[in-house]
Amino acid sequence: MLQESSVDSSGSRFAPLVVLELASDTKEEAITWLLSRIRDRQQNGGAELLVEQLGPGIGVKEKENPNMFLVGASMQRLLCGAEDLGLFKECTDGSMRAFTFASKHNFKDFKGDGDSFLSMAECQYVIKHELDTLRAKEETNVPGYSHAKLYPGKSIIRRLLSKGILIQMFPLHEKEELKRLSFSWYKKVKLSLQPLDDIRHYYGEGQALYFGFLEYFTFALVPMALIGVPYYLFDWEDYDKYVVFAVFNLVWCTVILELWKRRSASLAYYWGTLCRKKAFEEPRPGFHGVLGHNPVTGRAEPIYPTSKRHLRVYLVSLPFVLLCLYLSLYVMMIYFLMEGWALSIYDENPTFWTHILLFIPSIIYAVVIEAMNLIYRYAAEFLTEWENHRLESSYQNHLVLKVLVFNFFSCFASLFYIAFVMQDMELLRQSLATLLITSQILNQFMEAFLPYWLQRRRNKKMIRKVQKRRMYEEKELPLVEQVRLEADMSTYLGTFDDYLELFLLFGYVSLFSCVFPLAAVLVVLNNITEVYSDAFKMCRVFKRPFADPAANIGVWQLAFEAMSVIAVVTNCALIGMSPQVRSYFPESETQLILCTVAAEHVLLGFKFILTFLIQDVPKHIQDKLARLEFESLEALKKKRQLHGGKCWKPHSSVRLSSEEDSHFGFGSVFKC
Amino acid sequence: MLQESSVDSSGSRFAPLVVLELASDTKEEAITWLLSRIRDRQQNGGAELLVEQLGPGIGVKEKENPNMFLVGASMQRLLCGAEDLGLFKECTDGSMRAFTFASKHNFKDFKGDGDSFLSMAECQYVIKHELDTLRAKEETNVPGYSHAKLYPGKSIIRRLLSKGILIQMFPLHEKEELKRLSFSWYKKVKLSLQPLDDIRHYYGEGQALYFGFLEYFTFALVPMALIGVPYYLFDWEDYDKYVVFAVFNLVWCTVILELWKRRSASLAYYWGTLCRKKAFEEPRPGFHGVLGHNPVTGRAEPIYPTSKRHLRVYLVSLPFVLLCLYLSLYVMMIYFLMEGWALSIYDENPTFWTHILLFIPSIIYAVVIEAMNLIYRYAAEFLTEWENHRLESSYQNHLVLKVLVFNFFSCFASLFYIAFVMQDMELLRQSLATLLITSQILNQFMEAFLPYWLQRRRNKKMIRKVQKRRMYEEKELPLVEQVRLEADMSTYLGTFDDYLELFLLFGYVSLFSCVFPLAAVLVVLNNITEVYSDAFKMCRVFKRPFADPAANIGVWQLAFEAMSVIAVVTNCALIGMSPQVRSYFPESETQLILCTVAAEHVLLGFKFILTFLIQDVPKHIQDKLARLEFESLEALKKKRQLHGGKCWKPHSSVRLSSEEDSHFGFGSVFKC
Repeated sequence: MLQESSVDSSGSRFAPLVVLELASDTKEEAITWLLSRIRDRQQNGGAELLVEQLGPGIGVKEKENPNMFLVGASMQRLLCGAEDLGLFKECTDGSMRAFTFASKHNFKDFKGDGDSFLSMAECQYVIKHELDTLRAKEETNVPGYSHAKLYPGKSIIRRLLSKGILIQMFPLHEKEELKRLSFSWYKKVKLSLQPLDDIRHYYGEGQALYFGFLEYFTFALVPMALIGVPYYLFDWEDYDKYVVFAVFNLVWCTVILELWKRRSASLAYYWGTLCRKKAFEEPRPGFHGVLGHNPVTGRAEPIYPTSKRHLRVYLVSLPFVLLCLYLSLYVMMIYFLMEGWALSIYDENPTFWTHILLFIPSIIYAVVIEAMNLIYRYAAEFLTEWENHRLESSYQNHLVLKVLVFNFFSCFASLFYIAFVMQDMELLRQSLATLLITSQILNQFMEAFLPYWLQRRRNKKMIRKVQKRRMYEEKELPLVEQVRLEADMSTYLGTFDDYLELFLLFGYVSLFSCVFPLAAVLVVLNNITEVYSDAFKMCRVFKRPFADPAANIGVWQLAFEAMSVIAVVTNCALIGMSPQVRSYFPESETQLILCTVAAEHVLLGFKFILTFLIQDVPKHIQDKLARLEFESLEALKKKRQLHGGKCWKPHSSVRLSSEEDSHFGFGSVFKC
Repeated sequence: MLQESSVDSSGSRFAPLVVLELASDTKEEAITWLLSRIRDRQQNGGAELLVEQLGPGIGVKEKENPNMFLVGASMQRLLCGAEDLGLFKECTDGSMRAFTFASKHNFKDFKGDGDSFLSMAECQYVIKHELDTLRAKEETNVPGYSHAKLYPGKSIIRRLLSKGILIQMFPLHEKEELKRLSFSWYKKVKLSLQPLDDIRHYYGEGQALYFGFLEYFTFALVPMALIGVPYYLFDWEDYDKYVVFAVFNLVWCTVILELWKRRSASLAYYWGTLCRKKAFEEPRPGFHGVLGHNPVTGRAEPIYPTSKRHLRVYLVSLPFVLLCLYLSLYVMMIYFLMEGWALSIYDENPTFWTHILLFIPSIIYAVVIEAMNLIYRYAAEFLTEWENHRLESSYQNHLVLKVLVFNFFSCFASLFYIAFVMQDMELLRQSLATLLITSQILNQFMEAFLPYWLQRRRNKKMIRKVQKRRMYEEKELPLVEQVRLEADMSTYLGTFDDYLELFLLFGYVSLFSCVFPLAAVLVVLNNITEVYSDAFKMCRVFKRPFADPAANIGVWQLAFEAMSVIAVVTNCALIGMSPQVRSYFPESETQLILCTVAAEHVLLGFKFILTFLIQDVPKHIQDKLARLEFESLEALKKKRQLHGGKCWKPHSSVRLSSEEDSHFGFGSVFKC
């Protein structure tokens, strides 16, 4: 399963898994020190990994970075690392259990030395973990760099990263597996589900969950699209007939999110991440503060007071976000003014040029929106960095929240304004269609084709260079060139933008699709191409990302649920405004509003109850989890019975040695 | 700490902790079998407890039940039982850890043989657990009772209970400790907080959390009461000035519930229940079904299909509840009709007798409501029993939900009708005051004085009888008489009714106190007397209950939170209806309603965000929990390093014996 190519220069052969790229001007002493720390035995505080310098490429040597290192490990080391990480694997009896080296033969796919037991993504994840937790001992700074301070327990790799000495660390692609995966994923012509298990195997659980969600979301949209087509074809969509569609929307968006939780739990269970205990999270590389002691681990670590962070969040970031929201509303109002002005000019003097003028406000608005989103994104990243969160997860949550709120406003504010202030359903429909179609085209272009094109240009240059020299020697690209090619590829920045796009699409569909029933059809089509373009960019455009053992889609589940609540409110309001419903209350508008509000409250209450009734984890998986827990409790009892058996002979006073005491000292009980 | 009295009749001395009362006509062979199973060693599947028959009383022998048994255990047995239960105790370093016999000397209060390490309540809980998990082996039925079927793994005690052979099982009071507790709790004259730690020590965590919540709720009401008094005294409460009070209500009810979660987590942490793993829950005694195998434990157990239970819940119970709610609304409408009719008679002919007639409808309504609540309660219990829930917790949740919804309707429907349909604030105020005061008086009477009076009559008879015979022999009541006295005491049925009362009081205050600001004052006064009467009834009226190791107030937290959401909606509506706010929108009622609804949505959103921002567990306790988890992970790594050290010598191929393999087979990781 592992790449059998190896570094011949040193004589020792191992499968390279991860590449470390140091700055080209890194001092020799720092390199020697780092390599010795990586190679050192674990007893001495090393990572006990194999590491080799990458040989020079065939190309122009003067431009190449000589400080590229390939990292690998023996299979035994990887298995022990997997045990430390608490990876869950399937046992011979079909249950999922935390892998331990001692019980390795209980696991289903463990054969011989366990060569193909761990996927390459898992091996790379193990190596990343081992490198990340390689800690400074007595060093006070990185040799040769007096400003790169170290203290006992500080992660060396994170310090090297934060000081720019380590440029990047990335896992290598596996050509053969990638070819197989890309064939079954996006090159096949016949329609089929995505190979989620293979995606998980190659890219890890986080990626696979994203693609699983994308697929699920697409399927969930199919009924809506099927209803939408006849609505559109038979002109059912005159605006007093959208009530049925709004009611459908309302139920739909609640139910699919609840069912996704169950699907996600099933996937995560069989991928072994549902039960996995997360290791203690290290501070982010950029986290800074006064050196103190972590209250949990007791290790030396920078300490930054929570109160200070709260001050920054509530007194700076929050007002900034509110200001930006205000600004975006202001820009929207200017757009509506401009549009009104253009319309009045056209009405006065309807020529070709004034007709063109009608489109100008929309174009300006679209450009301004895109620019604002871009600037805001940078500002949000800067602010969240400045808030100095200790954990990457906390940083991500704050960033997602900031970006989400702004994007929601900039994308939907104009639609809300048209729907509820101007109450112009015809305009709403037009705007929605325009927004949806243009944003889809833009996205596909920006996301996949542009990076691919850039990448291709770079690659071609490299390949041409290589081929010029070795055309007649070998057919396959040698490892050295492959590594350098991959190092030059763009870095995949995570699923953030992909989820954000899905979130906005979900918003378009759930909020306003009742006035434009084709929205669901468009989104389904978009999602199908999205699968292909995302798959393509994962396989061809980007560096391979490290696996991310996610058990669910995290903060995005919350975001989608918040959107579904907003969708209930919006759809109720749209229903209340429909001429159909209005005709039931001809005499009193107050009555109409009160009824709408009452219905909305009932629906929100019902939605809330539904989230309780639909269990987040399917029963058979709950049973399996409970069974694991029960077994570990029983095993604990049995262990006590075997070791000493003190509790079963009431009047004996056998004492264990103090050492053995410490092993069984604290009731260690398995729990998911 | 344990009662040093003992059963002399048999010669062996032990501290009795729990009483088993079998039916007086129980067959001799069943008794012999049960006692031998209880006394049998654990290796042979027994409970390994000490058990003695209670000697005959001094009184009239022919009336006494001879089949009363005292159960106790050696200290070692109790400590091992505590380990099996995973009781958390404070260590010498101040942290809370699961008690294990092997590491007993690491625990703070462990001295000598550990005599006073476990509280009596804990010892009794251990014994209850051991008796509950005493399982049938090859017996197919209880000896002498062919209809009391048994199968391997069936809990013997639960079968005896469900067949009426075992009448009751209850823990004994400890006279000295009870005297101390009751003195510091309700007999002291000076004002002070309740001795929550002592309550927990004597009654267990579930009880202590109830009293903790009662105290917290009372303190939380104090600011509202302080604002309410000047409102009342200076006649601020004319009805166009209640806006400020409604806004205060709105914020108050959200914040106090969030803060209670933190307080509850703190209490539970220091009482050791926050981290405790719950043991696998056994089916309820009344649960029945076809004999099958539990998917979790693999043990033989009755199986009842979930789909059948769902059918019963959704097709029978739910319609029944809805029907009852409709009925209660119907009764309410009759009440309003009657009141209107009485008023019209009084208006026509205002004499003394017609004035009296004015009160008749209220009285009838109050009586009918009480009767309906009572009948409904029985019906709800019957239905929930019939739904055949496997777990006691699930039974309780369904019962609480049923009773809660009906009580909410019967208590508040008339108030809602007056407030929002009749829009008569003066009448609302009167009704609220009447309801609040009468329900308080009724409750205090029904809850404490009536049972106490009944109890006292019974006791007096008994004591007189005893004293007649032994007046000159001893001053203290002998153990035998004490046990028989306690067996005759009423059984405490749990905190259900107490929480229900608090829930309704919380409703009165949070929903409508803005129109009757004295409500908070009344509830504070009620709560203070409630503390005393509840404390009194716990100490004097009822049998001692078994401890209930609760980590929070469970389903009631949810109930209170649901009420606080309703309170936000109600208060917003009341604000929108106030003349003060109406005066801002003189021209358009639609505008007013839309603004009110918008404000309500913003507030609900804000409330939702607040629940996210206020962390449920205080930071320092989160740290402690994380530290425990981190330590256990580290300990696991260390253990691997010591045992075999396989992972640290990459090329060794040491194999553990298969037996040792199985001990470390599954990554047993501590988790809260």
